[in-house]
Amino acid sequence: MRNLFMVVSYDGTRYHGFQTQPGENTIQDYIEASIHALTGETVKIIASGRTDAGVHARAQVFNFETQSSIPIERWCLALNTRLPNDIVIRSAQEVPLSFHSRHSAHWKTYRYTINANAFPDVFNRAYEFHHPTKLDIEEMRTALSHMVGTFDYTSFASRKSTKASHVRTIYKAWMEHDVSSAIPGTRDQGIIHTYVTGNGFLQHMVRIMMGTLVRVGQGKFKSEDIPGIIAAEDRSAAGPTAVAHGLTLWEVGYDLNELSIEK
Amino acid sequence: MRNLFMVVSYDGTRYHGFQTQPGENTIQDYIEASIHALTGETVKIIASGRTDAGVHARAQVFNFETQSSIPIERWCLALNTRLPNDIVIRSAQEVPLSFHSRHSAHWKTYRYTINANAFPDVFNRAYEFHHPTKLDIEEMRTALSHMVGTFDYTSFASRKSTKASHVRTIYKAWMEHDVSSAIPGTRDQGIIHTYVTGNGFLQHMVRIMMGTLVRVGQGKFKSEDIPGIIAAEDRSAAGPTAVAHGLTLWEVGYDLNELSIEK
Repeated sequence: MRNLFMVVSYDGTRYHGFQTQPGENTIQDYIEASIHALTGETVKIIASGRTDAGVHARAQVFNFETQSSIPIERWCLALNTRLPNDIVIRSAQEVPLSFHSRHSAHWKTYRYTINANAFPDVFNRAYEFHHPTKLDIEEMRTALSHMVGTFDYTSFASRKSTKASHVRTIYKAWMEHDVSSAIPGTRDQGIIHTYVTGNGFLQHMVRIMMGTLVRVGQGKFKSEDIPGIIAAEDRSAAGPTAVAHGLTLWEVGYDLNELSIEK
Repeated sequence: MRNLFMVVSYDGTRYHGFQTQPGENTIQDYIEASIHALTGETVKIIASGRTDAGVHARAQVFNFETQSSIPIERWCLALNTRLPNDIVIRSAQEVPLSFHSRHSAHWKTYRYTINANAFPDVFNRAYEFHHPTKLDIEEMRTALSHMVGTFDYTSFASRKSTKASHVRTIYKAWMEHDVSSAIPGTRDQGIIHTYVTGNGFLQHMVRIMMGTLVRVGQGKFKSEDIPGIIAAEDRSAAGPTAVAHGLTLWEVGYDLNELSIEK
């Protein structure tokens, strides 16, 4: 038995999220079908976590056990030829049988992109939340800094969350403000990429953080309101859930020793 | 009568090119329909030139005459709400009646993008030619430099070209090689953006230049073969026509004095 670990990119636009659901069109379903088509095996892949309907991934990861003897360097191409064009396996390696994509993950980074130009970007419109009206980006940056730390993030979790604890740690969070696409002399404000790295995320957590930051940018909240919103431990204290299509699972971090098959 | 000049971006994926054709689904048709929906006028827009089926534009330009008194700052939003999501008017200004988007254009820049990584990029797959096998990028760069100048570019023109003269000037051409997406230790070679600026382009010219450069990158032509290919003035001397979806009309250059309505 071999344990294979793979990195996958996907455009989540036309999928009902990563994780298999009854009767739904999910990324996991397509990946498992491609493995079945290649090896004849029916496997359940283990990902670092689910992503919501419409959310994208630059580098989601998953692992699964196989009895196939196909050499490791053949897997990516063999699976990609059996996958739709909007799901691409980027790398594959053999890992110890003890490795588990969710349990072994040390951190995850998400990126959320706001296009604050007057008009959408036709080439990136599927990956950005278009917000054409004025945002106070410096105030948003300050608000974001108040979200970093170890807190009970109930205010930033879906009411449907079934987790026993809502305590999580956000290690760091930062904004990259790129004005290269802004047309001078217009109300264009460029592109705002927000990156959030944490040890785990609750359902809708990054999207609710972003919906709250947009309220700050609009002047409806102040950055100094954030500690109180967190302390409330009440979903209704925070802003709305920002649209799914602006969110991308950017990277998942592991201890390289746990990935190494050489002992 | 007013002469309005606009900059438009489009994702050419699902269109049969820019220019109106009988029974076809073109960018021009949609723009003219949006103007009709807004003003009730039936206009023929004048673009800087056509783009082929599947070719994109970051900044195509067009102008048209209108009797509408709608203030200039209202036009972009008013047309965008009447256009499909993959066509976006980015700016609008009033120009002298003498201004003509094609005749007044001084230069045009196209960009052609090759993804030379092992696997496609799910987010940019519609805008890149995926070429996963080895390319000699330095040899391609040298070959490209031999294409700059004033030449009869018959070797790089569609056999269907009906132009009286195939003499054009390429002012400059350059490659940007971005390896940030290449996974170390793999055969990934990153992304190669080729920019070509000239006073005009023949049908398929940039795509045939690129198909020829790819042959150079594969070792099937040498960079020093390029002068002979140009001198042949024969389409069969050059390489194949590279796929349309890697090509983007990047920018069209005008003399700002000709655009200015203040005299």
